[in-house]
Amino acid sequence: MRILFTNATILPCTPDMPVMEGAYLLVEGETILALGTGTPDVTADETLDLGGDILMPGMVNPHCHLAMTLFRGLGEDVDDRLFRYVLPMERKFVSPAMVRVGTALAALESIEAGVTTVADMYYYEAEVGRVLDRAGMRGIVGQTLADFNPPDHASMDEGFALVAALADEFAGHSRITASIAPHAPYSTGVPVMERIARWADDHQDVPVQIHLAEMTSENEWCATHHDMRPVQVVEAAGLLRPGLICAHCLHVTDDDIAAMADARVGVAHNARSNAKAGRGIAPVEAMRAAGIPVGIATDGPMSGNTLDLFAQFGPVSMFAKLLGKSRAPMPARDVIRMATIEGARVLGMDGSIGSLQPGKQADLIRIALDAPRMQPIYDHYATLVFSAMPSDVRDVMVAGRWLMRDRDVLTLERTQVMADAGQIATGFRAEMARIDAA
Amino acid sequence: MRILFTNATILPCTPDMPVMEGAYLLVEGETILALGTGTPDVTADETLDLGGDILMPGMVNPHCHLAMTLFRGLGEDVDDRLFRYVLPMERKFVSPAMVRVGTALAALESIEAGVTTVADMYYYEAEVGRVLDRAGMRGIVGQTLADFNPPDHASMDEGFALVAALADEFAGHSRITASIAPHAPYSTGVPVMERIARWADDHQDVPVQIHLAEMTSENEWCATHHDMRPVQVVEAAGLLRPGLICAHCLHVTDDDIAAMADARVGVAHNARSNAKAGRGIAPVEAMRAAGIPVGIATDGPMSGNTLDLFAQFGPVSMFAKLLGKSRAPMPARDVIRMATIEGARVLGMDGSIGSLQPGKQADLIRIALDAPRMQPIYDHYATLVFSAMPSDVRDVMVAGRWLMRDRDVLTLERTQVMADAGQIATGFRAEMARIDAA
Repeated sequence: MRILFTNATILPCTPDMPVMEGAYLLVEGETILALGTGTPDVTADETLDLGGDILMPGMVNPHCHLAMTLFRGLGEDVDDRLFRYVLPMERKFVSPAMVRVGTALAALESIEAGVTTVADMYYYEAEVGRVLDRAGMRGIVGQTLADFNPPDHASMDEGFALVAALADEFAGHSRITASIAPHAPYSTGVPVMERIARWADDHQDVPVQIHLAEMTSENEWCATHHDMRPVQVVEAAGLLRPGLICAHCLHVTDDDIAAMADARVGVAHNARSNAKAGRGIAPVEAMRAAGIPVGIATDGPMSGNTLDLFAQFGPVSMFAKLLGKSRAPMPARDVIRMATIEGARVLGMDGSIGSLQPGKQADLIRIALDAPRMQPIYDHYATLVFSAMPSDVRDVMVAGRWLMRDRDVLTLERTQVMADAGQIATGFRAEMARIDAA
Repeated sequence: MRILFTNATILPCTPDMPVMEGAYLLVEGETILALGTGTPDVTADETLDLGGDILMPGMVNPHCHLAMTLFRGLGEDVDDRLFRYVLPMERKFVSPAMVRVGTALAALESIEAGVTTVADMYYYEAEVGRVLDRAGMRGIVGQTLADFNPPDHASMDEGFALVAALADEFAGHSRITASIAPHAPYSTGVPVMERIARWADDHQDVPVQIHLAEMTSENEWCATHHDMRPVQVVEAAGLLRPGLICAHCLHVTDDDIAAMADARVGVAHNARSNAKAGRGIAPVEAMRAAGIPVGIATDGPMSGNTLDLFAQFGPVSMFAKLLGKSRAPMPARDVIRMATIEGARVLGMDGSIGSLQPGKQADLIRIALDAPRMQPIYDHYATLVFSAMPSDVRDVMVAGRWLMRDRDVLTLERTQVMADAGQIATGFRAEMARIDAA
């Protein structure tokens, strides 16, 4: 099966970040066979004239907690909401069924926003992997291991058993990758991190994810308990290693950045989540200058509210310009680079996704340009970063399979997913009322 | 003609910012006749069941340069773009026809985003007023007066003649209000500001707008030339007065804020525009604590890129939380308050618009809640601030007249407006290329 896109404005997201106008792209099966400008000398089973619309790689969200979509906006603006609402409610409500429903709602939203690959960290991750598989998305599903008696494992032996089962279930899967996720240096003790490091040594195909240097209180905890900074604690435990996916990294020093670059980790930048919590702005330009790949992430919708990268583009750009006191830092094309190929590099997937090149997986999205808000266009990257939004994404394809056509998600039952989510939210509302009345 | 909305979630934006579920609202002619919960005992010519959708006041954008929509994204990320591109291109291209086309594109975008009232500052403002009138919007149209030889007046006598003609043309108009707009303390000399103050004394119904304390270079200029801060220069010229619409106000001291509060000015906060320029964050919480009303503004699309307030909500909230190092500052309902009734107060229009109350003008918008991204809802204000976007606005009414129904703008010729804008943009592109080649 061959699909030919013609008359497209292709942003291949290759190193020079070119804009190819009047361009074509040919998909065969799961992969991209060819692309170029002018009239292609090829035959196809289906030809789609894009009328000048943008064709670009599906976006990569390198850090999220999909199932937490069910907590979206709960306890907004409340400083102690983690202990007041989140932890007690997670203990009470997190179950395989809740994770399944929350992930389905999240997948629906992600696909509608042109996000085709996610790295998730939560509980009952086999459910996450199954829903993402059914939705047709690409995902790294990370079983969280933590000391705070989390919902799905009472001991680390149980936690490791979950990881092993997850790795078994998705071994060899073309789109879903099992992952192991120590929660954070303050919540997953050094002995556990050391055990994870040994496990990861034996399972090189299982990526490791961690929350790192997210809060000043974390820095203080690490100083008190280990006389080290969070990055140093992770390094001492043997986890600061090539491919480690580090979420947040706000409170890092120049030495931390140098150590992270030496270790060849990747960073997931959660601009909106960090700012909404009043936690600060990650030194993204400094990390990238040191050679660390940085992707644009949403965090969980309890913290960042949405799962689209468009809502992150403004903050990512503005925060860099505010720190640099100039319009020049973080130009629009770098934002799009981070949302695609650089995010893929953070996940160790830049060999197969993140850019439109022959031989790569056909993970691509079409973005319409006909909204008044999108015109005129002097720089397609500026238009994407500052004008575009999820409603402009028209079509989404992963591995050559359509997940959305003309805004209609084909792989999930929208009505059922919304109804299931609504039912769970009703229970959450009652519990909130109970907590507030107590 | 009576229109009854039923089964709505009404956010009236009255002082307590309530959420009225299962509510109704009755419009008669141009005004709101009644609203409440439960089943209304009224008759209407048309009854609309909103199915739980939000009904709220049309949003107020208290500072923009609508015609500059044609410059959207031009010279993005370029620090010297003002002198490199904008000023030479304005000199070359700004004309009544260009202002007409740019304003029409801007009005289309504004209506699609649920913005019903704007305060504009630019050139050939009679054209702006005429387009907004035709579009059915409400607007304050400010003729800019500046010393830098702007496109539409070679002398201040010519400038004042434009203002007088503008005031004459829109005298008594129910939706369009003429305004006089000294550009800024560094670009409109004190003698001119004094002349404007005298003129405004004799024309109390003509609001005055000014850019104020926007840049550190402005503070330096005022220190060098007047040994004062910008707010003090404006005060010395007699312009710091009740109802003065002050745009930006980033670089203000506690003394400036006290003087502004005493003078009873209003502030238009341009969070995104200011941050994109790397200029900093306005002390919004401090100004509001001093009793100064602060509205949420977009600035011109050359600086802020879009004319919807949704794109500003995140920055407005996040910046306050970053400054306060906590989740608590600028709660979501305050953001919506600023976007509606407080913005109306900045423009001196809170007696007639900005909230849904019997006797007020029927300026209202319907927001759909059925996108996966909008669910679940625990706090409607949080949903509006962090999840909603222009594509969720379904219907727009101003003074009882439909401007948009089911996403179809009824008052402007979309295809023609887009074609006209595209033609002008082609000329801009050629000029940019000429400048870059020179």
